[in-house]
Amino acid sequence: VDLTTASKEQLQALQTELEQEYTGLKQAGLNLDLTRGKPSSDQLSLSNSLDGILQGDYTMDNIDLRNYGGLDGLPSAKTLFAPVIDVAIDEILIGGYSSLTLMHQCMIFCHFFGLNSSDGAWATEGKVKFLCPVPGYDRHFSICEQLGIEMIPVAIGDTGPDMDQVEALIKADPLIKGIWCVPRFSNPTGCVYSDKTVDRLAQLDNIAGNNFRIFYDNAYAVHTLSDDAPKLKSIMAACKKYGTEDSLLIFGSTSKITFAGAGVCYLGASKVNLAAITKHIGIVSIGPNKVDQARHVKFLQDSAGIKVLMDEHAKLLQPRFKAVTDGLENELADSGVCEWTKPEGGYFISFDTLPGLAKTVINMAAEAGVKLTPAGATFPYGRDPEDKNIRIAPSVPSVAEITKATEVFVNCVKLATINKLLAQ
Amino acid sequence: VDLTTASKEQLQALQTELEQEYTGLKQAGLNLDLTRGKPSSDQLSLSNSLDGILQGDYTMDNIDLRNYGGLDGLPSAKTLFAPVIDVAIDEILIGGYSSLTLMHQCMIFCHFFGLNSSDGAWATEGKVKFLCPVPGYDRHFSICEQLGIEMIPVAIGDTGPDMDQVEALIKADPLIKGIWCVPRFSNPTGCVYSDKTVDRLAQLDNIAGNNFRIFYDNAYAVHTLSDDAPKLKSIMAACKKYGTEDSLLIFGSTSKITFAGAGVCYLGASKVNLAAITKHIGIVSIGPNKVDQARHVKFLQDSAGIKVLMDEHAKLLQPRFKAVTDGLENELADSGVCEWTKPEGGYFISFDTLPGLAKTVINMAAEAGVKLTPAGATFPYGRDPEDKNIRIAPSVPSVAEITKATEVFVNCVKLATINKLLAQ
Repeated sequence: VDLTTASKEQLQALQTELEQEYTGLKQAGLNLDLTRGKPSSDQLSLSNSLDGILQGDYTMDNIDLRNYGGLDGLPSAKTLFAPVIDVAIDEILIGGYSSLTLMHQCMIFCHFFGLNSSDGAWATEGKVKFLCPVPGYDRHFSICEQLGIEMIPVAIGDTGPDMDQVEALIKADPLIKGIWCVPRFSNPTGCVYSDKTVDRLAQLDNIAGNNFRIFYDNAYAVHTLSDDAPKLKSIMAACKKYGTEDSLLIFGSTSKITFAGAGVCYLGASKVNLAAITKHIGIVSIGPNKVDQARHVKFLQDSAGIKVLMDEHAKLLQPRFKAVTDGLENELADSGVCEWTKPEGGYFISFDTLPGLAKTVINMAAEAGVKLTPAGATFPYGRDPEDKNIRIAPSVPSVAEITKATEVFVNCVKLATINKLLAQ
Repeated sequence: VDLTTASKEQLQALQTELEQEYTGLKQAGLNLDLTRGKPSSDQLSLSNSLDGILQGDYTMDNIDLRNYGGLDGLPSAKTLFAPVIDVAIDEILIGGYSSLTLMHQCMIFCHFFGLNSSDGAWATEGKVKFLCPVPGYDRHFSICEQLGIEMIPVAIGDTGPDMDQVEALIKADPLIKGIWCVPRFSNPTGCVYSDKTVDRLAQLDNIAGNNFRIFYDNAYAVHTLSDDAPKLKSIMAACKKYGTEDSLLIFGSTSKITFAGAGVCYLGASKVNLAAITKHIGIVSIGPNKVDQARHVKFLQDSAGIKVLMDEHAKLLQPRFKAVTDGLENELADSGVCEWTKPEGGYFISFDTLPGLAKTVINMAAEAGVKLTPAGATFPYGRDPEDKNIRIAPSVPSVAEITKATEVFVNCVKLATINKLLAQ
């Protein structure tokens, strides 16, 4: 039913029906959590052989893995992960268990210390700003907020950020020092940046102020739901073409390849930036956990090994995504009052209600035992100006649970929408 | 021979003899490294059962160790490590593999963001200063240098920092925001802070400016060479007595208990500080590596388990320390031209030449194939004002190698000293 063209009587009849259904759902005592993009227990179990995989051999690349040192990571780990983010082996640093920590460190270096020289510290220039494609990832925004960096939202579409808007903003203001990007299966829309978008990102440094940096969080580089998912053009290659490779910092981790809390993270950057970052990191630590890096090398082996494992993840994730999108498609396809994405990878589905309804729907779903990411979380400062975006994270519950959660969600969307339409 | 009272002729005769010996040593082609306090391969092997110890069981404290979360660490790891730094179980946070990273993060929080409230950020108050007991740990000083915090050296003696000096400086300048401490087996002197020193440290907050913090790096809390090594009074207990527990941040790690590069670190602090730090760390990471924390819990088990392991370390370290101190004692005891410490734990021996000779001795030893920590490294900005302190780290080479290295070192000290005395 297209709710936008339904009569008042039709809406009232539907309202009564949906209210009854909602009451029933509330009484069912559900307790389902679709809040965060984390792997399910079944996914994590795919990597259970990590502990013990060294079999007493704590040497790799002629290095004693157990001792201090090796700030930029194990050579074998570089060889393994460089292709994942499309950089050369001398353009990658392998870190600890958290790419978020690596991003935070790089922001601190850029902002307070200057990445490549102390006179390049952003903080010395005035009120620094960052472009934030929205909806986006709340933890990126939290870093900016902690550092007092003003966030400027820009729209994101099927091909990535609105590059006309991005370029115009950057041209007009040299205090815009960077942009957050999740280029493949963007969090939460699931879009993959087009070749054209990657190409235009690679040219931003030529119109930006000093020390402009693309924080390129390639978190879902190999996280496809099927083999025909759209590919991502290599941004390092594009930057090299335009001579802008020092503006690029690529991040990634195995948090959603092996263990979410005990993986390995990496940073792709130009040789100039890597040398500078390694120097900064040398103040922060005496070296990363090389034992864990070696475990990952032995477990994943090479790109083919990563592909085999990611296919196993896809087998577990794809039916869960399908449970959501089927539920939405069957019940809301012709409703005319909402939109959602159908990602081919990553961890999220992005759903837009009519303006002003996201908070209401999330609260209603919570009352019926279905937890969703808080309204506004996908926007800087937690403020969705239209109060319409909802992030759905279907990786953890079972397919049956997700089917049920989607049923609750659909009910809440319909009911909230009809309540709104009738109140107008 | 007391070189200070030897005649010119005696010195000249000795000089000739020592020069011949030095030439011989240079020709021996030695390659010995006494630069850094890291465990030997034999020490690391004591913990080889860490990999595989979980035997497929990735659950502890009813938590899936493999997934995100648990910012303040595993409960079982808190129970294990709280006694090591003498705090209660609700006064400890368990982190990743590097206590240096934890210290760096806390410095960033205090300096730029304010540990407990944004108006308490040190950086907003002006040119911040820190007290640095010298000789001290170069990596502490590097953090201050990176942050632009001015370092004020204070003398350290057998009972810890000169507390008269510390108190006078702090009373006179509210911009002194903290002090670095390595309270047990101080790096590099090996002294253990006396009860009185701990007690006076605990009262500093009462005479200091706002947001004063003791960065208490208890790196060698259980790292004794024998059972009768001096004990350290609990500073948390002392702080509670004086109501100053919010001025205290205690750090430690298993880097020299299990694996130097793949251990577990921890932070002891008041509940107020822990809550604030956990909030800051929540911006930096989604949680520590709980798999590694659980490995440590299973491997070390409890305080008795830690003691058994540390006794094994002592068996390997004690003969190495003895090789140095015996060599020095036999050759330099009555020379009147140098002093050194005889630590009962930790990783270092601190050696003082006559003023102006440390660099010379270190360079001479290097030419004879014995690498020592660079001169000045134990002082802020790498500047030893008297150019006399040398840090000796005897943990890695074999006893035979250390005996040889000490022979070289003694030759260099004598020769450099005699050269200086004859030139006067």
